[in-house]
Amino acid sequence: MKILLIGASGTIGSAIAEELAPRHAIVRIGRRSGEEQVDISDSASIRKLFERVGAFDALVCAAGNATFAALGEMSASDFALGLQEKLMGQVNLLLIGREFASEGASFTFTSGVLSHEPIRTGASASLVNGAVDAFVRAAAIEMPRGMRVNSVSPTVVVEAMASYAPYFRGFKPVPAAEVALAYAKSVEGLQTGQNYRVG
Amino acid sequence: MKILLIGASGTIGSAIAEELAPRHAIVRIGRRSGEEQVDISDSASIRKLFERVGAFDALVCAAGNATFAALGEMSASDFALGLQEKLMGQVNLLLIGREFASEGASFTFTSGVLSHEPIRTGASASLVNGAVDAFVRAAAIEMPRGMRVNSVSPTVVVEAMASYAPYFRGFKPVPAAEVALAYAKSVEGLQTGQNYRVG
Repeated sequence: MKILLIGASGTIGSAIAEELAPRHAIVRIGRRSGEEQVDISDSASIRKLFERVGAFDALVCAAGNATFAALGEMSASDFALGLQEKLMGQVNLLLIGREFASEGASFTFTSGVLSHEPIRTGASASLVNGAVDAFVRAAAIEMPRGMRVNSVSPTVVVEAMASYAPYFRGFKPVPAAEVALAYAKSVEGLQTGQNYRVG
Repeated sequence: MKILLIGASGTIGSAIAEELAPRHAIVRIGRRSGEEQVDISDSASIRKLFERVGAFDALVCAAGNATFAALGEMSASDFALGLQEKLMGQVNLLLIGREFASEGASFTFTSGVLSHEPIRTGASASLVNGAVDAFVRAAAIEMPRGMRVNSVSPTVVVEAMASYAPYFRGFKPVPAAEVALAYAKSVEGLQTGQNYRVG
């Protein structure tokens, strides 16, 4: 399969590449790194990416930021990054990407544990993760040409604990390689409308 | 209690007013109707509302639109209404309203069944409902001064079936009066971070 991997240089993205590369042709995509670049908060940038890379069999997105801040210090503008990047960035990858996707292609997006296990400073990320998971469940039933869409909802990964541990006390971290398996399940399996929780 | 009821003239809003009015002082608020007006998609309008009505013990929002359209015909702009109104409108009611809310005040928002049972044309509403429910779970753990926040997630109501039935085949509609009970449970109970599913 020809698989577009957005966020290929990240902790989870690298693990996905390692899991899928032995069996598939991976196009590694990043904001500034990789074989191709894209800014997923920008529809025009997304469209140009697809015009460059052409037809594909699977798209995996392990990119997309959101603002972390104490709720007491947040105003509406602090929610904009998450809405524009992690949420609408991924929605737009589907809305634009489906024009270029091969019949039966799959889209695999990333949400996260905060949708159902909130932490301090995580209100925007929780909101976005819940939105991504619900969008995936809904979009799946209206996909054209046998296309599929799933999300992977990972808990915190072992590799990130050096910086994130204070925010995730009591969470059992999982290795990124284990999270990567869920992306393989989505890409190489046949399910659609699923939110694969890892951890 | 002094309860601000936004969307008071709607099908569900009217039923909430009927349920709560015998025991509480309800301020009926609408976009164009009611004792007070607010456009929840506009932060400035929300702030002015709170400045006019002053301290309150509970806020209930049964307002907020989203675009319904076939996913195949949607682009990013079709998600803007839901994000700005039903999602960030309700988020903003909390972010701004908490400054004016009395100690221990509650916020009760509206999501809906489409977060977990998608229908044709409902992708934006599903996304928004999932986001509202996740935001509520997250915001609840960071609320100041003993404040609470919950959402009510109703299925389609009997009173709306005349127009919505073709989209909700197989769904068992519930009377708006039954949905209103969940708002009473949120306002008059003590739980927080809950998504009360009705139907």
